[in-house]
Amino acid sequence: MTTAKWIWRLALNIILLALCGVHAEKPSGYYRQVCESRKGKLIQPNSAYRSRLLALREQMQIRASLVGPEIYGYILPSTDDHLNQEVAARDQRLRYLSGYTGVRAFAAITHRGAAIWLENRYAQQADGELDCDWEIYLANSTVSIADWLGSQLHLDKRVGADPQLVAHHLWVTWERELEDRFLKLVKVNNNLVDLIWGVDRPAPPKNHVIQVQVQDFAGEHWQDKVKELRRRLAHLGCDAMVVTSLTEISYLLNIRGTDIPYTPVVKSYAIVTPNDIFFYVDHDKISLGIDLHLRTDCFNEDCVKIKEYHQIWSDIRTYVQKWKRVLVPAPCVQELGATEAIHVAVGDTIVEHISPIIFMRAQKNSDEQAGMRRAHVKDGAAICEAMSNLETRFNTEQWTEEKIKYEIELWRLSQKHAKGLSLRTVVAYGEHSALPYYISSNVTNIEVSDQSLLVIESGGQYLEGTTDVSRTFIFGQPTNEMKKAYTNVLAGILHLAQLKFPADLKPSEVDALVRSMVWKDMTDYPQATGHGIGAYGSVEEPPISVAYGKNSSFHFKRGYFFSSESGYYKRDDFGVRLKNVLEAIDTGHTHPSGAHFLAFQDVTLVPYEPKLIDSTLLSAVEKRLLNDYNAKIRNEVGDELKRLGNMKAFYWMMNKTRHIREYLPEDEYRAATGGASHRTQSYQNYALTIITSMPVIWIVSRS
Amino acid sequence: MTTAKWIWRLALNIILLALCGVHAEKPSGYYRQVCESRKGKLIQPNSAYRSRLLALREQMQIRASLVGPEIYGYILPSTDDHLNQEVAARDQRLRYLSGYTGVRAFAAITHRGAAIWLENRYAQQADGELDCDWEIYLANSTVSIADWLGSQLHLDKRVGADPQLVAHHLWVTWERELEDRFLKLVKVNNNLVDLIWGVDRPAPPKNHVIQVQVQDFAGEHWQDKVKELRRRLAHLGCDAMVVTSLTEISYLLNIRGTDIPYTPVVKSYAIVTPNDIFFYVDHDKISLGIDLHLRTDCFNEDCVKIKEYHQIWSDIRTYVQKWKRVLVPAPCVQELGATEAIHVAVGDTIVEHISPIIFMRAQKNSDEQAGMRRAHVKDGAAICEAMSNLETRFNTEQWTEEKIKYEIELWRLSQKHAKGLSLRTVVAYGEHSALPYYISSNVTNIEVSDQSLLVIESGGQYLEGTTDVSRTFIFGQPTNEMKKAYTNVLAGILHLAQLKFPADLKPSEVDALVRSMVWKDMTDYPQATGHGIGAYGSVEEPPISVAYGKNSSFHFKRGYFFSSESGYYKRDDFGVRLKNVLEAIDTGHTHPSGAHFLAFQDVTLVPYEPKLIDSTLLSAVEKRLLNDYNAKIRNEVGDELKRLGNMKAFYWMMNKTRHIREYLPEDEYRAATGGASHRTQSYQNYALTIITSMPVIWIVSRS
Repeated sequence: MTTAKWIWRLALNIILLALCGVHAEKPSGYYRQVCESRKGKLIQPNSAYRSRLLALREQMQIRASLVGPEIYGYILPSTDDHLNQEVAARDQRLRYLSGYTGVRAFAAITHRGAAIWLENRYAQQADGELDCDWEIYLANSTVSIADWLGSQLHLDKRVGADPQLVAHHLWVTWERELEDRFLKLVKVNNNLVDLIWGVDRPAPPKNHVIQVQVQDFAGEHWQDKVKELRRRLAHLGCDAMVVTSLTEISYLLNIRGTDIPYTPVVKSYAIVTPNDIFFYVDHDKISLGIDLHLRTDCFNEDCVKIKEYHQIWSDIRTYVQKWKRVLVPAPCVQELGATEAIHVAVGDTIVEHISPIIFMRAQKNSDEQAGMRRAHVKDGAAICEAMSNLETRFNTEQWTEEKIKYEIELWRLSQKHAKGLSLRTVVAYGEHSALPYYISSNVTNIEVSDQSLLVIESGGQYLEGTTDVSRTFIFGQPTNEMKKAYTNVLAGILHLAQLKFPADLKPSEVDALVRSMVWKDMTDYPQATGHGIGAYGSVEEPPISVAYGKNSSFHFKRGYFFSSESGYYKRDDFGVRLKNVLEAIDTGHTHPSGAHFLAFQDVTLVPYEPKLIDSTLLSAVEKRLLNDYNAKIRNEVGDELKRLGNMKAFYWMMNKTRHIREYLPEDEYRAATGGASHRTQSYQNYALTIITSMPVIWIVSRS
Repeated sequence: MTTAKWIWRLALNIILLALCGVHAEKPSGYYRQVCESRKGKLIQPNSAYRSRLLALREQMQIRASLVGPEIYGYILPSTDDHLNQEVAARDQRLRYLSGYTGVRAFAAITHRGAAIWLENRYAQQADGELDCDWEIYLANSTVSIADWLGSQLHLDKRVGADPQLVAHHLWVTWERELEDRFLKLVKVNNNLVDLIWGVDRPAPPKNHVIQVQVQDFAGEHWQDKVKELRRRLAHLGCDAMVVTSLTEISYLLNIRGTDIPYTPVVKSYAIVTPNDIFFYVDHDKISLGIDLHLRTDCFNEDCVKIKEYHQIWSDIRTYVQKWKRVLVPAPCVQELGATEAIHVAVGDTIVEHISPIIFMRAQKNSDEQAGMRRAHVKDGAAICEAMSNLETRFNTEQWTEEKIKYEIELWRLSQKHAKGLSLRTVVAYGEHSALPYYISSNVTNIEVSDQSLLVIESGGQYLEGTTDVSRTFIFGQPTNEMKKAYTNVLAGILHLAQLKFPADLKPSEVDALVRSMVWKDMTDYPQATGHGIGAYGSVEEPPISVAYGKNSSFHFKRGYFFSSESGYYKRDDFGVRLKNVLEAIDTGHTHPSGAHFLAFQDVTLVPYEPKLIDSTLLSAVEKRLLNDYNAKIRNEVGDELKRLGNMKAFYWMMNKTRHIREYLPEDEYRAATGGASHRTQSYQNYALTIITSMPVIWIVSRS
């Protein structure tokens, strides 16, 4: 660097430091009461997490002597190599380092401090779990990771991160933001947490043999799926595609696994070219059946070549020599796309594009459709069994959130073909139900009584399909406020389920149909109203996202399955949540614009809580929809419960799905509108207007 | 050109011609039955329009000797220099040339043929108005203007158009499309139609003196508006703005005029810089009052300098020498932006950006809000007067669409401060009401009886504000089908009017609330559900557009006024249309996301037709909304009618706005659901399920 440059730089630094002194106060994050109360006291509790933090900082320095200059900051995401949110125990690096058990978080560590960025919904949980060494920032706060690092570090310092755990687009953003603050983001290929994680790090699960998703449920041979993918790749002019999403690989090759929680996938990569299918996976997971299924013994384009998981990196570097255009998945709704490491490996031949597999998978074939419906009937039966059992035993035992969670999971996992849960089961009672993303745990567990609402959100993985359902119950008698909240939420769900619409309507444009019912009380729920759902796959599957204000360019198609969810949260009091899975079907009619008229159909078949429905708030049409839905449950879940021979659950279900009167008699109407009839008032008005208009008539007739 | 180039070109031409011969059959447009039936007959009717077409073709050749090479094709839009759709008589060039009286059309003329592109909704009208010399194409057809010209002309031919009448973005599109077909678009600055339009061309209206929009109605001094505009221009780093939209000039300077139909504007340009306001207008329109209002006698930045209308062109060319960044309006929803001529004149200094005036104007100030409400009360009274008068005289006179139109317009224009109509009044009876964009005329006029529905869409300009309303009436007894259609349309309108929503909801995201009510019968209406509306300005004002599938990035704000419209069209039978103007108001509540909760409020106060409302299809809530709306009409329009002393209209209004019972008694419910009660059926189902489950119980109890 020339002297002039140095002087310029020095001057700039001084000015910037001066500016920082004036403007940039130390950023302050989420207010942690427990830590504030400890301040000034001599001894703060010591924990394993503090020593891990110290060990990590040591590694940040050690790096100096091993692979390059020391790094002064380190960013650690909660995701794994495939950018999953829920990750295997072995990949829970952020949890190991900090104790935080939630998902969707990023940590930044410097020698002076440590901070974590997480979504609003996890703030309370993190506050309870994290040492006071950690500051907490909300993802939507004004303080970004780069801001925080900028406030912690001097200029020109280096910040490290593992490119295998960070999505490319995020990496680019961080790089730019840090550069704006005169910091440099460097790739640290050895994950520093792995280095300090000793013998207690869970070993890679060796016995998780891959399972074949048989034709009856998959509905399509994997060879046909690969053929279709190749057709789409050719259309995009690509030589090859690197499949990085685990759910996409599972779908494409009709395989399932147990490598990460809640989603039946195999930790692997795949590369598809016009002539080859490479499948990178731990060899221990391969059984003879998988060899036969994937046709590993032949050498044409319909035979899979199985390679060791880590070989993908050297393979990509070799193959990109001959490939010209390699498709690497771009971000799409919930999917984050490929990691920075993949982008670096593929290099200049990269064609970033939304994975074609997403659209092939979203439109379920007829076997998958039938499977999804079947899975939901079984799931409905499971909930009826669990809830009827719970209601019978409610008054004679003591119940907590965790105990109810155990019951729900037990009954669900007892169903035929049940393969696990599809999401963390949420059982939230009373004020916990007012927290939109509450996850019960041993720490937060409370007793469940009959005074308030109980929200249960859960889902299961069945060979036939994936389920996702929320229901709100009460064991005692609800207040009118609870009934009103529940009925409004229910009305939104009913409105969406009965919608008929032209296929060019965007998913974000149906959101107001559901939300307008809660908006009228000037409240809202923070979740998206809907997301796609897989067939024995991920419970959140692109490309559908029903959320107003978001730009979504993907439309509903026949055979798409997605969730329809609504909620009401009254802080520190109670909450209501209902979620159904819907299926998009073709009505056979055509819109004047030429688009098909699509409709929705309820797939979830779990009774609502009739005690919580205030039928005076529903229209005759809404009540008819509800009665039709109940009739469907009686019919389909009724058959299933009879098949299971569980008559207790059957009668519980029959009781909850009783027909409600669709018309509104005068006495109920008067009671609902609070005694004094609107009609009478109005006639009084009318009479009054007539009387006041008399003089005018008089004047007119005289003139 | 070198020989090699010539040979290459020749070869290409031959190949292309061969290809054309194979593929491009003569494009065929809208099927014109009347012309088909005339084919082969020796004499086709001769008309003034044919001779005008011939004269235009002559001009296309004459151009060769005057200003440049001959042009072989000519494109003529229906718009004027300010890209208005409804234009002054003097600017109706397309109508003069072809006889077409609709709007939003483009004509293309070659020596061999003539064709017109128009929206679907005008096809029928054009078919009746145009000679058989003209082909008709729909705007959304696969044959573009360039395609047609390509099929008519040899390669390398020149096509002309007037850059003053064509929006810049359209010009660029045409240029590219014609180039793809080896044709060249050239600017013809002398409009060829003006050249052939002789003495019968209407003179520029000389006596249209500009009116001042007084402070009571404008609510804000024009100096303050200019100040705000300058602030926004400075924020965008612009030296100047060329204001090309007539409605924006009228708003900005608090002036109104009568230069084009339906919109009270003055044909003019304005240029606003930090130190100057130039106003380009015909000097004959300036009175002493305007001189005082615009402060033309002083020389500081708050004084307007008035210049002759055509001087803008030389001024822009002079001033751009010193300006660095000139804001020229970009297209925004209905606004088409600036013309190609303006873009050429401003040249390199251009900064194309949505006009800041659009957002200043859309958010009406409190005087404008009060004015809009007041205008709608008077407008409601006018419709009550017209309709009550019509109903009284209905059986004793013969009524036609045109006669009813006259009555409606007469009563509206008789109101105090009425300044004209805001749109072409639509009176459509019977099968005409089933045409979404029917415009009645002497040719199409039919008798109105009491058998079918009568749709009236109309609006007025008042000093206080602009109105726009659609209502559907019937003089006899409606069928059940009509009642169902009307009630569904009404329910959509009621749903939107009662919506409360966070301010970051996009207008396109509320559309489904209105349309879902007609979608359920697998029909739809082609109009947008809503558009912004001006205060004594244009009846279609950006930036609001409520239309699903369209990307709209502008949100509702407090003080925005817009229309809410829904319709049902049963081809060749009947149609229903209802349109209200709504106002966005702030509820004072805050959404959890921090956005304000807004709500809508009905501004239009015109009774619905109670005979057409099937109250069994409405929920108690909807009926309450309807009763509240009716109470508001009785109150506000009632007062106005009493003030006017028109008791006939008053009692007509009181009769149409009678309270309806909000609950649904059993007998009505049973009648509505068709005798056999749903409830009974359901109980039968229930009983059946119990019975069929018996054997299971038996089995269970035995086992």
